[in-house]
Amino acid sequence: MSKIFDHEITRRGFLKQTGQGLIAAHAATIITRAAEAQRVPDPPGKKAGWAIVGLGSLAINQILPAFAKCEQSRPVALVSGHPDKANKLAQRYGIKPGSIYNYQNYDTIRDNPEVDIIYIVLPNGMHAEYTIRGHQAGKHVLSEKPMANSPADCQAMIDAARKSNRKLMVAYRCRYEPFNQAMIKIARDKELGPVKVIVADHGFNIGDPTQWRLKKELAGGGSLMDIGIYSLQAARYITGEEPTEVNASMYSTPGDVRFKEVEETINFQLRFPSGVLANCTSSYGYSGQNRYRVIATTGWFELEPATSYTGLRMRVRRGNATEERDIQPRDHFAAEMDHMSECVMNDKPPLTPGEEGLQDLKIMSAIYEAARDGKTVKLQRGEGSG
Amino acid sequence: MSKIFDHEITRRGFLKQTGQGLIAAHAATIITRAAEAQRVPDPPGKKAGWAIVGLGSLAINQILPAFAKCEQSRPVALVSGHPDKANKLAQRYGIKPGSIYNYQNYDTIRDNPEVDIIYIVLPNGMHAEYTIRGHQAGKHVLSEKPMANSPADCQAMIDAARKSNRKLMVAYRCRYEPFNQAMIKIARDKELGPVKVIVADHGFNIGDPTQWRLKKELAGGGSLMDIGIYSLQAARYITGEEPTEVNASMYSTPGDVRFKEVEETINFQLRFPSGVLANCTSSYGYSGQNRYRVIATTGWFELEPATSYTGLRMRVRRGNATEERDIQPRDHFAAEMDHMSECVMNDKPPLTPGEEGLQDLKIMSAIYEAARDGKTVKLQRGEGSG
Repeated sequence: MSKIFDHEITRRGFLKQTGQGLIAAHAATIITRAAEAQRVPDPPGKKAGWAIVGLGSLAINQILPAFAKCEQSRPVALVSGHPDKANKLAQRYGIKPGSIYNYQNYDTIRDNPEVDIIYIVLPNGMHAEYTIRGHQAGKHVLSEKPMANSPADCQAMIDAARKSNRKLMVAYRCRYEPFNQAMIKIARDKELGPVKVIVADHGFNIGDPTQWRLKKELAGGGSLMDIGIYSLQAARYITGEEPTEVNASMYSTPGDVRFKEVEETINFQLRFPSGVLANCTSSYGYSGQNRYRVIATTGWFELEPATSYTGLRMRVRRGNATEERDIQPRDHFAAEMDHMSECVMNDKPPLTPGEEGLQDLKIMSAIYEAARDGKTVKLQRGEGSG
Repeated sequence: MSKIFDHEITRRGFLKQTGQGLIAAHAATIITRAAEAQRVPDPPGKKAGWAIVGLGSLAINQILPAFAKCEQSRPVALVSGHPDKANKLAQRYGIKPGSIYNYQNYDTIRDNPEVDIIYIVLPNGMHAEYTIRGHQAGKHVLSEKPMANSPADCQAMIDAARKSNRKLMVAYRCRYEPFNQAMIKIARDKELGPVKVIVADHGFNIGDPTQWRLKKELAGGGSLMDIGIYSLQAARYITGEEPTEVNASMYSTPGDVRFKEVEETINFQLRFPSGVLANCTSSYGYSGQNRYRVIATTGWFELEPATSYTGLRMRVRRGNATEERDIQPRDHFAAEMDHMSECVMNDKPPLTPGEEGLQDLKIMSAIYEAARDGKTVKLQRGEGSG
């Protein structure tokens, strides 16, 4: 069912010529449909080509190695401000020297037919710009979380994807790995009765005070944007609902140079339509926390660690017995990238589209507002729910 | 150092005759001092005599059996509306038939010289009346928690104790047992650095919808008053501080007959002057929770179970290693009663006096207000701190 994939070049050329998104999209659909009738099925193992934008530690230590575990994804381009780093990594991963870009010539990636999908692994404040430029270059885009610094930026990214008729996904890797998926299933199946309360804690004691995560412009905020978002996500995907109200309390240690621009700790409460209440903590000041517990009427189930790259553990309590459930792990990044490749190659909507990232940004904005104003902030029903 | 203990009868008689609290107290001090000069030291093992008021399951299954583990406390009287139950228990614990009271003749306990201390184990809404009547009968009083249904009732109890020159303590048993004491020590010693966040969860899925805990007049409130108070207490004794602000979110399942009068779930956030933030849950609707974790800068420490009568477990995390700390347990009720006996026999202030119970009621009132009004409620600095 790889409808449009083999015809990217033609289509991209067409889009470039007309420069008119909606008309182009309509015309492209006609071309695609016509092409589809004559297409030869892809050979087994066909892989989408990925460009990695931003070669920080996440890209180097997690994302690039994960391609070895991908079935449908392969690295074909790198975008970096550091040519030395890019060259070394290109050699390691068999990427052509001509497929190394910097931030100035990034837009010429449109002319690289090997690149189907761009993975934005830049600081949060740069996600919007590089996503939109990626879409304008006719590529599909996977953006790291948080999607952007503001709901407005998220909306602009969604609009750019729509205009270019390309896909946009947010890298919520936990949605694609089996431990968190098993937690969702227990909740949905009501295996331990209806869920009542979710308790989620995510954070760590952040180091180097000069890092981008502590700069408001690059990070958009503090612990909430970077790590508290995992608590927020967990509450949302476990319930499968959107919160209607938030409370929050915030604290930054006075005089701590790390927290001059962004918050240290921000704890929040969420209310969901079914009555589930979530109590979440998020901190850059406390020792590593990475867990959530879902408390239902006849037992509870938890992950700790819950959202680390590896080593997740699940415990299920029923009556007086606690059981550790053994689940076959999967590389989170490989799973997430293969999902995106699958969506692109088969023209399916991703599980975590731009609208999902926008919704988190709307809720996080409400959490900051609740902490700042000392009041319960109500969210509109269905607001931003993708 | 049992200053006043041997002279209770004289003193009580005196107080009764004059009926004037302050003058009586002054005169009693003179008598006591005079008596003290000639007193023979108590033989080792001298025990204060206790009357148990209210023979529900807590009294039957926990408190009365705990006397066997007490060094300074013995049961000498029972107060109950059920003579059969009282007679059976009296036989079991060697209590004289003449020392069994009902709620009508309760006040005549003043004439029972064996009774030094009255332990109020009644529904919350009756604590104030029976404590005040106990003080008016010239006895010292230990009240179960929560101390009463309102701060005003707590204040009336404190006033009654003061007027009668008798001691008043609230039965916060966790302050007297070694696991929670060890947690306090780790926090105070900053063994894992300064405390940043406390996460505490207490609750259970409550059964019988006709029980007094679900009646507003008898219970004062729902899960918060009964079980959420353990989360509140933990946050207060771990920090050793008084909260300055609270947020809360509350939910009761519509149509659930258990929650017609009192709340099911009420989760709350506390801010302490040092910047510690606590995130607490409290529920009568979820499956048993009994834990708190204290997250500091270089590790965390937790109890789970934290406040059960038995079986507490402590885990301490530092770096990548989690250690279970083995602590010699002690019967919570024996420890608490012996503390009260010690305070009475040696005229020392209890660790958890009436002011401690009043402070919890003030904070719980603020939590209810925050949930109801959807706003952060500020507590006055030092308000009610005992």
